[in-house]
Amino acid sequence: LTGEFEVVAALAETLPRPTDPRQVWIGDDAAVLPTPSGGRLLLATDAVVAGVHADLSLTGLDDLGWKALAAAVSDIAAMGGDPGHAVVAVAAPAGTDMAALYEGIAASAAAHRCPVVGGDLVSSTALVVAVTVTGFCEDEPVLRRGARPGDGVWVTRPLGAAAAGLRSYLAAGADEAAGPGDADNRRAHARPRAELDAGRAARQAGATAMIDISDGLAADLGHLVDASGVGIRLESVPVAAGATVDDALGGGEDFALAFCAGDAARVAAAFAGLRAPLLVGTCTDAGGELTLAGVSLNRAGWEHRW
Amino acid sequence: LTGEFEVVAALAETLPRPTDPRQVWIGDDAAVLPTPSGGRLLLATDAVVAGVHADLSLTGLDDLGWKALAAAVSDIAAMGGDPGHAVVAVAAPAGTDMAALYEGIAASAAAHRCPVVGGDLVSSTALVVAVTVTGFCEDEPVLRRGARPGDGVWVTRPLGAAAAGLRSYLAAGADEAAGPGDADNRRAHARPRAELDAGRAARQAGATAMIDISDGLAADLGHLVDASGVGIRLESVPVAAGATVDDALGGGEDFALAFCAGDAARVAAAFAGLRAPLLVGTCTDAGGELTLAGVSLNRAGWEHRW
Repeated sequence: LTGEFEVVAALAETLPRPTDPRQVWIGDDAAVLPTPSGGRLLLATDAVVAGVHADLSLTGLDDLGWKALAAAVSDIAAMGGDPGHAVVAVAAPAGTDMAALYEGIAASAAAHRCPVVGGDLVSSTALVVAVTVTGFCEDEPVLRRGARPGDGVWVTRPLGAAAAGLRSYLAAGADEAAGPGDADNRRAHARPRAELDAGRAARQAGATAMIDISDGLAADLGHLVDASGVGIRLESVPVAAGATVDDALGGGEDFALAFCAGDAARVAAAFAGLRAPLLVGTCTDAGGELTLAGVSLNRAGWEHRW
Repeated sequence: LTGEFEVVAALAETLPRPTDPRQVWIGDDAAVLPTPSGGRLLLATDAVVAGVHADLSLTGLDDLGWKALAAAVSDIAAMGGDPGHAVVAVAAPAGTDMAALYEGIAASAAAHRCPVVGGDLVSSTALVVAVTVTGFCEDEPVLRRGARPGDGVWVTRPLGAAAAGLRSYLAAGADEAAGPGDADNRRAHARPRAELDAGRAARQAGATAMIDISDGLAADLGHLVDASGVGIRLESVPVAAGATVDDALGGGEDFALAFCAGDAARVAAAFAGLRAPLLVGTCTDAGGELTLAGVSLNRAGWEHRW
């Protein structure tokens, strides 16, 4: 077992499952849990590693901290939830500029309205930032598994910006940004924003399934079709300025949302005042199939491998 | 800034504080948070690093996984709470025996009745396991800050076993255990148990302040006296078989609980059926003072340093 998804699937087999069907444990963006007071809690954790998720010769420790929190909040957005609070575990080597790291964490917490309420700080040879966030949802959260044949498929904005931004950094170094869309794309890579408003709007629009695009559109829609038992026929892929179709399909960490819904008018209404989501395709009854303009997509996106 | 507590204190200064005085953010074993449904959520995170918290030439990856979850659950025990659920972020180098790691995590989750409901798995050069647990409390959780002059101080069992167990591993290697208490002490080091029953009993006994002993009795009572604005005069230090007084005062990761309470009879009654806690001293009005048999204690315990 050398790929993240294979390892996680094998591990999930060994862990207990919920007996209450309203609970969601492993296998969605966030867990959905009951609370003794009768409420419903969302819980998600994400780890970011220096040198893997961010090249510290290109972007700052503050950006790494920002991204770690944004990635976890994005999992709450992908359920249509509101963030509650965050706890942050940091494993850091000697010499780490902790103030810079926490400046980014705190700025991201403020931007996402998800205050940091606790943490742990330990010594390590690698810099690892693991952020856990809670979330709440006034009615049913949107899972990955509810899409139905005939539903439309939307994405919340053009894709590939984060991958294009990383490429811009790699090509020109930290100080220069030249090409079209470069400045926006670098920001998308260094300081991604979780789409909380869009996630909430999708839920209010009656979204049947939703996922955040953290591994690339093809990989993440692959997770969604597997969970829902539908197929997806894509007719278009909206590409961010300066990005390529490959960036959009296979680039990770865009943190846009993809969702399925049955009623396009309701989607339009729920997103009034927000950036209009982009209709990209349709759910089919060909379970597990994922095509673009009739051609099967390579579903391999970003995956941690060992 | 080179010590964990100094760094955390500096970081905490830069983060927002709760406006609601019933909330607890940074500075206790777990955060105490409101939920929209009117309940109260406990939240704690702990990171464990291979080579720092556990020497993998002495104990197994399963033990590392066990300890990571137990350490986080111990923070819930230290509030007098009941564990809810856990999420686990793992950053792992190539070749890590993930099945062994998760076997320990799953066994600890079962033993502590705190199922793993989600996680993240990423590649890294160091093995870091960050566990976040939720918890609940039927009435007010016990904080570090409520101790009053005149309260008694109890610990839930003799101390130093984990430090003695580590020494036994270091002296004799993984396969042999010889001295008095060695087998128990090795287990205390490799597979610590969070004291959930004792934490709950202490809360029911009207405990005014509580902390788990993860950095050593002197360091952790130091945190408690600082938070409560009292002093503590210790009259005795209960030492586990095979351990030394230094192990008990300065050894980390015992995960016993220390608590303060005003009514010894109520303590005895609340612990009926459990191991009786040990009265070790008294709270005084000499704020910040921590003495044993009249002599000031060195409060430096285990602290991550860079």
